[in-house]
Amino acid sequence: MNTFGQLFRVTSFGESHGGVVGCVVDGCPPNLKISIEDIQKDLDRRRPGQSKITSPRKEEDKIEILSGVFEGKTTGTPILLLAWNKDAMPEDYKKMKNIFRPGHADLTYAVKYGIRDWQGGGRASARETLARVAAGAIAKKFLKEKLRIEFLAYIEQVGEIKTKDKKITKEMIELIEKVGREGDSVGGVIRGMIKNVPIGLGEPVFDKLSADLGKAMLSIPAVKGFEIGSGFEGVKMRGSQHNDEFFIDKQGRIRTRTNNAGGILGGISNGETIHFRVAFKPVSTIKKKQKTIDINKKEVELEATGRHDPCVLPRAVPIVEAMAALVIMDHYLRHKAQNL
Amino acid sequence: MNTFGQLFRVTSFGESHGGVVGCVVDGCPPNLKISIEDIQKDLDRRRPGQSKITSPRKEEDKIEILSGVFEGKTTGTPILLLAWNKDAMPEDYKKMKNIFRPGHADLTYAVKYGIRDWQGGGRASARETLARVAAGAIAKKFLKEKLRIEFLAYIEQVGEIKTKDKKITKEMIELIEKVGREGDSVGGVIRGMIKNVPIGLGEPVFDKLSADLGKAMLSIPAVKGFEIGSGFEGVKMRGSQHNDEFFIDKQGRIRTRTNNAGGILGGISNGETIHFRVAFKPVSTIKKKQKTIDINKKEVELEATGRHDPCVLPRAVPIVEAMAALVIMDHYLRHKAQNL
Amino acid sequence: MNTFGQLFRVTSFGESHGGVVGCVVDGCPPNLKISIEDIQKDLDRRRPGQSKITSPRKEEDKIEILSGVFEGKTTGTPILLLAWNKDAMPEDYKKMKNIFRPGHADLTYAVKYGIRDWQGGGRASARETLARVAAGAIAKKFLKEKLRIEFLAYIEQVGEIKTKDKKITKEMIELIEKVGREGDSVGGVIRGMIKNVPIGLGEPVFDKLSADLGKAMLSIPAVKGFEIGSGFEGVKMRGSQHNDEFFIDKQGRIRTRTNNAGGILGGISNGETIHFRVAFKPVSTIKKKQKTIDINKKEVELEATGRHDPCVLPRAVPIVEAMAALVIMDHYLRHKAQNL
Amino acid sequence: MNTFGQLFRVTSFGESHGGVVGCVVDGCPPNLKISIEDIQKDLDRRRPGQSKITSPRKEEDKIEILSGVFEGKTTGTPILLLAWNKDAMPEDYKKMKNIFRPGHADLTYAVKYGIRDWQGGGRASARETLARVAAGAIAKKFLKEKLRIEFLAYIEQVGEIKTKDKKITKEMIELIEKVGREGDSVGGVIRGMIKNVPIGLGEPVFDKLSADLGKAMLSIPAVKGFEIGSGFEGVKMRGSQHNDEFFIDKQGRIRTRTNNAGGILGGISNGETIHFRVAFKPVSTIKKKQKTIDINKKEVELEATGRHDPCVLPRAVPIVEAMAALVIMDHYLRHKAQNL
Repeated sequence: MNTFGQLFRVTSFGESHGGVVGCVVDGCPPNLKISIEDIQKDLDRRRPGQSKITSPRKEEDKIEILSGVFEGKTTGTPILLLAWNKDAMPEDYKKMKNIFRPGHADLTYAVKYGIRDWQGGGRASARETLARVAAGAIAKKFLKEKLRIEFLAYIEQVGEIKTKDKKITKEMIELIEKVGREGDSVGGVIRGMIKNVPIGLGEPVFDKLSADLGKAMLSIPAVKGFEIGSGFEGVKMRGSQHNDEFFIDKQGRIRTRTNNAGGILGGISNGETIHFRVAFKPVSTIKKKQKTIDINKKEVELEATGRHDPCVLPRAVPIVEAMAALVIMDHYLRHKAQNL
Repeated sequence: MNTFGQLFRVTSFGESHGGVVGCVVDGCPPNLKISIEDIQKDLDRRRPGQSKITSPRKEEDKIEILSGVFEGKTTGTPILLLAWNKDAMPEDYKKMKNIFRPGHADLTYAVKYGIRDWQGGGRASARETLARVAAGAIAKKFLKEKLRIEFLAYIEQVGEIKTKDKKITKEMIELIEKVGREGDSVGGVIRGMIKNVPIGLGEPVFDKLSADLGKAMLSIPAVKGFEIGSGFEGVKMRGSQHNDEFFIDKQGRIRTRTNNAGGILGGISNGETIHFRVAFKPVSTIKKKQKTIDINKKEVELEATGRHDPCVLPRAVPIVEAMAALVIMDHYLRHKAQNL
Repeated sequence: MNTFGQLFRVTSFGESHGGVVGCVVDGCPPNLKISIEDIQKDLDRRRPGQSKITSPRKEEDKIEILSGVFEGKTTGTPILLLAWNKDAMPEDYKKMKNIFRPGHADLTYAVKYGIRDWQGGGRASARETLARVAAGAIAKKFLKEKLRIEFLAYIEQVGEIKTKDKKITKEMIELIEKVGREGDSVGGVIRGMIKNVPIGLGEPVFDKLSADLGKAMLSIPAVKGFEIGSGFEGVKMRGSQHNDEFFIDKQGRIRTRTNNAGGILGGISNGETIHFRVAFKPVSTIKKKQKTIDINKKEVELEATGRHDPCVLPRAVPIVEAMAALVIMDHYLRHKAQNL
Repeated sequence: MNTFGQLFRVTSFGESHGGVVGCVVDGCPPNLKISIEDIQKDLDRRRPGQSKITSPRKEEDKIEILSGVFEGKTTGTPILLLAWNKDAMPEDYKKMKNIFRPGHADLTYAVKYGIRDWQGGGRASARETLARVAAGAIAKKFLKEKLRIEFLAYIEQVGEIKTKDKKITKEMIELIEKVGREGDSVGGVIRGMIKNVPIGLGEPVFDKLSADLGKAMLSIPAVKGFEIGSGFEGVKMRGSQHNDEFFIDKQGRIRTRTNNAGGILGGISNGETIHFRVAFKPVSTIKKKQKTIDINKKEVELEATGRHDPCVLPRAVPIVEAMAALVIMDHYLRHKAQNL
């Protein structure tokens, strides 16, 4: 349904142009200091219109904490996080009200539920990710303070252009701007890293840490692929190359010399940095004309109006971090429950 | 924990060399005809020792149905599926009892649980997948009979060798045999396809059909990557290329001209064939000498004895199909519950 | 945690004197017409200050629907129901800030969470039940329209005074008023009835319909007992008396001549009216002086100020109905999923 | 479905006359010493035929541990507990194959699932409780060793005869024997006590410890009522009487002078002994003739053959203890997860 996690549970709600978007965070340990600012700074990274290369939509995305925090600290009860939708432009969408937009969830939602919320994608809107980033900010703060765990995501590839130094390059920006001028969109790859994860998080069999990270990433709009460690490239290696050799480091800790595993062995963290890659398709909303059909099964031409964001990757970086934090937080609490 | 699914729930149990492996299937609709043969035929595909290119282990893998079926039909109550472990060779493992094998879950389990079941990998053994295939066979039968849904997986790549016609090639077999002679192992890619899925399965936001398929595949031992539809290649496309254009086919059905989406839009099936790819690393058990450490943190050399399977892909094909069937079955029941 | 139900899931949030109380309802089928009025009428029955015999607190309890409903109909996505807290009187509670009130959850929350939200009971406040009534109103509307199922609860006993005709009697009101004048409180029993439940709701073993109704009722603040059908009195009967004899009625339906079972056999509804009883202790907030301890473990005398409601039963009637509706709704969806 | 608990999860399977009954226990912490004897001693208390006053059925109820335990200790992986059904007497049941027995789940199962397993009640058989007692024995051992928590249940009432000293009286035995000679059955009340529970177990709102204990007890076959603490009698008290006054005892601990709360305040344990009462109806299987209907809706007379147990209370005592242990164990793990 609309809940993520077993023990650190995020229940998301809201449509892009209804009253609000937000979530209830249940299971947050008590006595964590948390403020609006802790959350807002990640939301600001997610917000469209932050830079030349992201969407011009000017939502303010001001988050409110309406329960579960007392005198600046969590109380162990559910935390309601909520942002009001201010920038509704139903006129833009009214024109497309009867059209199934290619690449979007319009058709599948309409058939599944037998009802269509045509305003800006309704529940399928990327605006829903605001709730993920807000909830993730709480998890990140807890994990940083309690366990020194850190989350870092960056754009590794835009279209065919790759970077190696964790910074978005001039070529990437130029490509995004060019695609934008053409009324088109472009995809890319985000790399995620999680540092200082203790050995032992994750569960055997179904709830492997890698499986839950994969699900988390694949639940982000526009994601089409996920790799942990060596990923698809690793299939070309031999076992003798791929196996990460164990050794004892100078501090006496068990380490591996390479990290093809991506920090996870048998579904459980091994203490090395967890690293993974996430593939984003080019977003479906484009300004170019497209052929499609309407709700009466007539073939029509669609020329989208309204906002257009040629590349979601800059906005997606904090979403990747947030989802990773929700997974680690949940598995940390599960580990604490089961092991003495 | 050890349960997969919300409404079609598979609870797995068993170690590689303990008494049994198996699972409880809860939530199977009543009045489905099911026999040992329906399950055994998929188990036989998974069994090591089936061909020259798979492991020599000669388990019989005879499944027993011990509850939930009465006079050949499911009753709606939990189905216990169980296979006895016959081929235990603890001597082979006793030698490695104190060694953390590279690429395996030995270390992570030992640290997580503070106890080590050293016999053949314990719970982390690939033998656990027998339960998945058995449960998946029930889901496959139901979905075939009720909805004509079909599951097809095949080896698309071994090491660097790719096929295009769904058949394992002579080159692939030669590569596996060569690697086996060298005491090494090799990975590959399995492609999965699901045909005749109705529009509407999957849920918005977290439990997208693609996210749950991804989790299912990433929970299979040795899997390091998952792609739906265009996957990592799709990031290079423009939105105008990637968006699958809708049209009305001769039967009056809504279809798409291309299928970059992989049969899923906004997390919900769109009626096209679902297709995805799964990356398997080369298995960790090799015969070549490897440097590693033991439980006393001393550096040692490991030379594995016992069984050795240079490529798990042939055995993994029915596992991929089974996990896909569990996901589709679960979402079919969820869809039935929520929509009138 | 703070979620009730498997398929019709209510996630509750909010403290008595924080910003809001409310809930997210996930899993509501789409295309149900729902309005503020549908919900508000049950909330008004729950509201304190409705009559002479209930608490003087004048909250307005205006519910808002902030997501999941589009053009007056549910869309199948999460419904956010929310009411703002307007009548906060922290001064009344500040005096009791360091005192553990007898009969209340002050001590247990403080020890459990290591933090105390001293304003009006925080999460343990009866104000939380507003969310239950709001969610229950949606379930009631669905079940009435779709299946003609009806929920009826009434006060059967106040202190030692019982009624037989489903109406609160003059003697009951006099007792409550007398107890109120004494600064004390009194408990009682509410009887619940559910009509027109089809045969087949509920599950064998753990999730019996009677077990889930029991849990639902025992989760209401101040509830100390639950009986289904013959209850504690039934233990004195012989099996030959207690067994409800089956017969075929004039419409050809299978019925039972008596209903000691309370409409549930083996945990599954049998088509007869479900009836049960719920015991409420006298509420803990009284105006009489009481001995207790403070957070420094010093013995002190407590004389509560602020609101005082000598008997919660009138307010509890719609809560009993709402919780029953949540249970029936959830089991109806579960039944629909599992049975073809 | 057939799973009880969130973190200490028991998934039950098996019919009375199929191959086996048993369960999978998932979430048990590792390194707990557990042996067949630890479990068997509680099973022997549950077994029919143990004394003159229980059923003559001579099952051996030998439990097997088939996974999750290695060299005498739990490993943190799922524990499969299983007992084979040896004493099947299908002939006795074949006679009743087409008859809906009054008071039994025959009708409700048949309508719910559209299929009937007529052998000895199928899944609705009391034999299913064997799995609960086996799983509960593991929880009891853990809680005793780790936290000194103890579970004690005893028969407080048979028919109208009550005891005050925790021992079954001569009058009770005579009543049961007399009822047995008449081919009839009789109900009663079991009191349960849980000692040394630390402050803080249980959760606010829905998952109150009292609500989960209530659900656990109401899920036992034949249970019709549950009371915590003062229960139905407490409704007659005034708040000033019912509120348990806090004081500091000689060891400096916070205690209450009375225990009307039954050891639980606001759904959370307060450190006092938890006490509750469970009402059992007279069992439905009697030897006396009864009027009923068959599957063709014809009115018939039923004269049951086979086993007959005039009073299940002696057997039910270990079941009550086991279910209480499962609830406490689950909430202990949940508490450990959420609180630092």
